Amino acid sequence: MAASPNDMASTLARPMANAIRALAMDAVEAAKSGHPGMPMGMADAAAMLFSRYLKFDPADPAWPDRDRFILSAGHGSMLLYALLHLTGYAAPTIDDIRRFRQLGSPCAGHPENIHLAGAECTTGPLGQGLAMAVGFAMAERHLNAVFDAALVDHRTWVVAGDGCLMEGINHEAIGLAGHLGLGRLNVLWDDNRITIDGPVTLSSSEDIPARYAAAGWHVTACDGHAMDDVARAIEQAMADPRPSLIQCRTIIGKGAPNKQGTSKTHGSPLGADEVAAARTAMGWDAPPFVVPEQIGAAWREVGARGASARAAWGDRLAAHPRRADFEARMAGAAVDTSPLDAHIKALIAAPQNIATRKSSEIALAAITGSLPQLVGGSADLTGSNFTKTPDLTPMIRSDYAGRYVNYGIREFGMAAAMNGMALHGGVIPFGGTFLVFSDYARPAIRLSAIQHARVIYVMTHDSIGVGEDGPTHQPIEHVASLRLIPNLDVFRPCDAVETAECWQLAIARADGPSLLALSRQNLPQLRREAAENRSARGGYRLLAAQAPRKVVLVATGSEVAIAADVAATLEAQGIGADVVSMPCTSRFDAQDAAYRADMLPASALRVSIEAGSTVGWERYTGENGLRIGIDSFGASGPIDALYAHFGLTADAITARILAML
Amino acid sequence: MAASPNDMASTLARPMANAIRALAMDAVEAAKSGHPGMPMGMADAAAMLFSRYLKFDPADPAWPDRDRFILSAGHGSMLLYALLHLTGYAAPTIDDIRRFRQLGSPCAGHPENIHLAGAECTTGPLGQGLAMAVGFAMAERHLNAVFDAALVDHRTWVVAGDGCLMEGINHEAIGLAGHLGLGRLNVLWDDNRITIDGPVTLSSSEDIPARYAAAGWHVTACDGHAMDDVARAIEQAMADPRPSLIQCRTIIGKGAPNKQGTSKTHGSPLGADEVAAARTAMGWDAPPFVVPEQIGAAWREVGARGASARAAWGDRLAAHPRRADFEARMAGAAVDTSPLDAHIKALIAAPQNIATRKSSEIALAAITGSLPQLVGGSADLTGSNFTKTPDLTPMIRSDYAGRYVNYGIREFGMAAAMNGMALHGGVIPFGGTFLVFSDYARPAIRLSAIQHARVIYVMTHDSIGVGEDGPTHQPIEHVASLRLIPNLDVFRPCDAVETAECWQLAIARADGPSLLALSRQNLPQLRREAAENRSARGGYRLLAAQAPRKVVLVATGSEVAIAADVAATLEAQGIGADVVSMPCTSRFDAQDAAYRADMLPASALRVSIEAGSTVGWERYTGENGLRIGIDSFGASGPIDALYAHFGLTADAITARILAML
Repeated sequence: MAASPNDMASTLARPMANAIRALAMDAVEAAKSGHPGMPMGMADAAAMLFSRYLKFDPADPAWPDRDRFILSAGHGSMLLYALLHLTGYAAPTIDDIRRFRQLGSPCAGHPENIHLAGAECTTGPLGQGLAMAVGFAMAERHLNAVFDAALVDHRTWVVAGDGCLMEGINHEAIGLAGHLGLGRLNVLWDDNRITIDGPVTLSSSEDIPARYAAAGWHVTACDGHAMDDVARAIEQAMADPRPSLIQCRTIIGKGAPNKQGTSKTHGSPLGADEVAAARTAMGWDAPPFVVPEQIGAAWREVGARGASARAAWGDRLAAHPRRADFEARMAGAAVDTSPLDAHIKALIAAPQNIATRKSSEIALAAITGSLPQLVGGSADLTGSNFTKTPDLTPMIRSDYAGRYVNYGIREFGMAAAMNGMALHGGVIPFGGTFLVFSDYARPAIRLSAIQHARVIYVMTHDSIGVGEDGPTHQPIEHVASLRLIPNLDVFRPCDAVETAECWQLAIARADGPSLLALSRQNLPQLRREAAENRSARGGYRLLAAQAPRKVVLVATGSEVAIAADVAATLEAQGIGADVVSMPCTSRFDAQDAAYRADMLPASALRVSIEAGSTVGWERYTGENGLRIGIDSFGASGPIDALYAHFGLTADAITARILAML
Repeated sequence: MAASPNDMASTLARPMANAIRALAMDAVEAAKSGHPGMPMGMADAAAMLFSRYLKFDPADPAWPDRDRFILSAGHGSMLLYALLHLTGYAAPTIDDIRRFRQLGSPCAGHPENIHLAGAECTTGPLGQGLAMAVGFAMAERHLNAVFDAALVDHRTWVVAGDGCLMEGINHEAIGLAGHLGLGRLNVLWDDNRITIDGPVTLSSSEDIPARYAAAGWHVTACDGHAMDDVARAIEQAMADPRPSLIQCRTIIGKGAPNKQGTSKTHGSPLGADEVAAARTAMGWDAPPFVVPEQIGAAWREVGARGASARAAWGDRLAAHPRRADFEARMAGAAVDTSPLDAHIKALIAAPQNIATRKSSEIALAAITGSLPQLVGGSADLTGSNFTKTPDLTPMIRSDYAGRYVNYGIREFGMAAAMNGMALHGGVIPFGGTFLVFSDYARPAIRLSAIQHARVIYVMTHDSIGVGEDGPTHQPIEHVASLRLIPNLDVFRPCDAVETAECWQLAIARADGPSLLALSRQNLPQLRREAAENRSARGGYRLLAAQAPRKVVLVATGSEVAIAADVAATLEAQGIGADVVSMPCTSRFDAQDAAYRADMLPASALRVSIEAGSTVGWERYTGENGLRIGIDSFGASGPIDALYAHFGLTADAITARILAML
C-alpha cells in the first residue's frame, strides 16, 4: 500500500497516537465519566488505520465512496471523536470535545450518527456495530455490482471489543458475512482480555479465532501497539478475499502506568493523579485539550490524504452515464410510489379477500420492478412472510447484484444488517419474520429508530390468527410494545388496499423505520374506494353510522372486519355505529385535535378491538370505553376456535357493547 | 452401558422408531398442520436415547433426579408426545395425540411445560431450548455440589435443529456451557441440512463442529439412522468431561419416500398419498393412531426401565440426613423472607438515601445468607447492578457450589439459563443487566412468563437517570413494554423500603417471573413506616393531601420523590395533593375496584409521573388527566440537566398542573 509522506512510519507515529490518548483521558476527566481504556488501548492501531489505509476525506464526510469506519465498541467514543477532530472534520471541534458527554454536544457518551457526521452509525448496544457493518459491506458490494467499481469501491472497517464478540448477535453477523464472502469487511478486535467485571477468563474460555475461521473468516493477529505489525496485519486482511478478523493484542488503558491492563480503566475517569502519571509516562507535556502544533499538523496531513482520491472519484462520477441515478439513490431522494396507486385502483376494481401478508406480496410485486433500491429478505420464512417477488433474485457471493437476502434463522442479525444497509445509503432494505420474533430483533429495531434508518420490517402472523402453533408463536403484547418505540411507525393494515397504502407510506418515509404487522389469515377487502391514501392519517372513518351514532368501533388489522360485523349487527338493532380503522396510531396521534375528536367523539361509546394487549387503548376509548383484546398468552388451536375462546367474535363483542349501552 | 433386555438392539428397534414416525405423521395429518419432518428424521436417534440411556420413569415425571430431555426444536413436538405416550406417561393419551394442536389438548403445537408433565420447558422460539438446557445442567451440578451425588446425579439431553444452532443465543449458550465445563449436557443436533426456506447452504456456510470445539465442547458425529452408530456417539458423549455435541446426520422426514430430504416435510402435513406411501415403505400396516401390540409392549418395557433406579433413589432420599431440606427446595416450597422484615425495620430506624440498585444490594445481603436457593449473577455488570453479596461466591467449573454466575456479556443467554435453572427446581435464580438491555433478553423474559418460571430480573439504570451514556443506554419504552408481558410482575420501587418489599414479593412469587427496575441515582427514603408490605397492593397512598384534595399524583421509582416535591409545592398554595406510589401496576390492577377508585379518584386531577413512555398511563389518570413522561429517545448529559431538559422537575410539573387546574 502507498504510504503517505508523513505517516505512522515516521517518528511522529507514537506521539500522534498519544494525542488520541491525551484527548480521551482529558475528555473523560472533564466529563467525570466515560471510558478511557478502549481509546487508549486502541490508539495505536486506529492511528495506523487512519493514517495509511482508511479512505476518507474530512472535507466531505458524506462522500459516497468513502470507507466506512464503525466503532462497534461505542463506549470508546473518544477514540472516534479524537480521530475526527485530529484529521480535520468540521466537527467535533475541540470545544465539542471539551463538552464530551454534555447535553447538546455532538460528542455524546456513545457515538450518534444523527448528531455527528463521521459517526456512520449509532453504537453502544454491544455487538450491533459489527452486525451493522455487515450490512454496510453488503450494500457496498451490491452497489458495486449494480453500478460499477468506478463509483463504488470501498471497505468497511470495524473496531470491536470483547463484548461485541461475546454477544449472541456476533454469531449471526459473522455467519452471514462469512456466507456472503464479504471480503471488504475488516474487523479490528481490541483483544485486551478485560471486561467490566474483570478478566475475560471470568466468563469465557472461547477460542475466538477458531470460531471466526469456522464461520469462513480470515483471521490474523498482531501486537496492537507495534505499528509495523498492525500494518502488516491490516495488509493481510485487505489482501484476503474473505472477511477478516484482526486480533489486536492490546493493553487496555495503555499509557496510564498504574491502571493500564485492568478493568479500572474501562469505564471510569483515571483520576487526576493517574492522568498526570500518564502524561509523564508518555512524555506528553501539553495542557489538557491542547495538541502540539507539529503533531496536529501531522494529523491534518493524514486528513488531507484522501482529497485527491475524492476528487478523482468526483471526476468519474461527473462523467458517468448513470450519475443522476446514482446520486438520487445515494441521497435517498423521494421515490415514486405511483405504481402502487395503479395497484390500488386494480384492487378497487377487483377486490381481493386475502391475508394481508399476501396483500403485501402483491403490493411488493407492483413496486419492486420500478424501485431497484428495494432489497428484500427474510429470516428463513420466505414462504410465510411472502417477501420475495419475481424481481428479486438472491444476493449471493457470486452475484451481489441480487436483491433478495436469505438471512437464515438470524432475526437480530437481519435487522442489524438492514440498519447498516440503510445507513450506507443507496438501498432501502426490507425483511421479514414472524411478528412474535420481533422480540429477537428488538434491540436493532430500536436502533433503527434512534438512527433514523430507513428500514422496513415485514412482520407476519401478527396475532392468535397464527392458530395451532400456539402461544410461543402468537403475538399478544408485540404490536403494543412496538408502538412504544419512539420514531417507529407501526402499521397494521386491515385489508389489501390498506396494505398497499401502508407500503406506500413506509417506502416514502425517509427519516425512520416502519414496521408492517400482517395477518396469516385471509381477510375481506373492506375498502371499496381509494381516492386518497387514507392510511396516511393513521386512523380514519371506514364506515359511518347509519342510525343515530351511539357507538364508535376502533379496530386494527384483522379485527376491522370483526368491527364491521359488529357495526352491522348494531345497526340492525337501530344503534348507529362508526367503524374507525386505525392502521397506525403514531400517525393518528400526529393529527390535529379536531380531527381526532371527530373520529373518536367522547359522546359515543368508544370500543377498541385488537387481538392483543388492551393496554394503551384507553387513549382512544377513554376510561369509560370498552377495550376488547387479549391480556393473557394465546393458545394452540385452530383460528376460529381461538377467536371464539378469546371472545373476539362479532357476537361476543356485540353482547358486551349492548350490556354497556 | 447396561442395555435393557428388549431394547433397540433387538429386531424391534426399527419398528419402535417407526411407531414415532407413524404417530407424528398421523397427528399432523389429522391436525392439518404441524411439522412431521423433524420427528420422522430424529425418530431413530431419539428412540435409541430413550431406550438405552435416558434416566426417566413415566410413573413419576417429577422425579427430581431424572435426566432432563429438552426438545429445543420445539416445532417437532410430536417427537416428544410420541415418546411420552409410548413409554407410558399418564399424558399424553392417544386421544390427546388425536387432538394434536387442538384447543385444550396437552399436545399443543409446541411443547408447553405448564400443560404437560414430561415437557421440561416450553420450546419453539428457536435456540432457547438449548440455552435453557444450559441452565438445567448448571442447576444439576450446583445441587450435586450443594447436596451430593446420592440425591443429584443426572444428565441434560437436548434435541436441537439447525435453527437452534443458527440463532445468536446459541453462541451465548454454548460459550457459557463450555466455560463452565458442563459435561453432563449432551446435545443431539438434527443435522438434516434443511431449513424452512430450503437447504441450509442457502444461508450458512459454517463449520458447526469447529465452532463448538472452539467453545470448549466435545464433538462427535453419527449416522442418525444407524442405531449402533447413534449408541456409540452417545456413549462417547457421556464419557467425555466436556459438554458434547452429537452431530446426527439425518434425513428430514425419513420414511416418507417421495418427500424425505426436502423442506416439504418440514412444516406441513405430508398429505394422504404420501402418508400411505410412507406406511408402505416402512411396512407399517396399522391404522392411524394404532400401535401394534408387540411394539407398544416393547416401548412400555422401555418406560419401565427406570423404575428400579427411581426406587433406589427414593431409598437414598429417605435415609438422607438432608431429606427435608432437599425436598423443600425441589418443591419450591414457600420461603421465609422475614429477614427482610428485620432489614426494613432497620431502614425505618435509620433511613438511607441511596440508589435503589444499592437498596437492592443491601436487601439481598439481608436474605442471601438464609436462602441458599438464591443463585445470583450479572451479564458483566456486577459492579453496576450490585447483584453480588458476600454470601455469593462464584460458580465455576472447579466449584459448582458457588452461587454467583459471571454470565459474561450474554444477556439473552443469562435469561435463558435462569429459566432453565428455575424449571429444574431447587434454585431461585436472579440476574442483572441494565434495563435498556432487557431488550436483548426479552424473548427469554417472555418465556419465563409463559412457563411460570420463578426467575428474578434485576434491571438497573432504569431511566434517563443513566445520564451521560445517552440514548442507547437510557430506557424510555422499557418499563411500559415489560408491563405488557402477561404474567410478568414489573416492580419499580421508589426507595430502600419499597425495594426490600419488592424483593420480598419477587422471592415469594412461585408462579412466574418478577423484574425489578432500579435507579442508578440516589433517592431519598420516602417511606418512614412499614407496618405492612405496602408494595404488595401494587400502588398505595404514600402521602395524603393536607389541604382539600384537588390533585392525585401517581408516580413510580425515582419519580416518586419528584411527586412528593410537587405535592409540597401545591400544598403550600392550598391545593391538596395525594401522592400514590405505584411500584407494580399488575398488582394494582388486581386490587378490587373500590380500592383502586379510592387511590385514584376521578374527582381529582390525576397526574402520572414516570421518566419513560406515557402510553398506558391513561388507565390511571383518565383521559383528562395529565401524563408526565418522555415519549422520545433520551440524550447524553448529566442527570440533572436531563431531568430539566425533559421537564421532569418539580417546578416544571407544578406549572403544568397549575395550568390545568
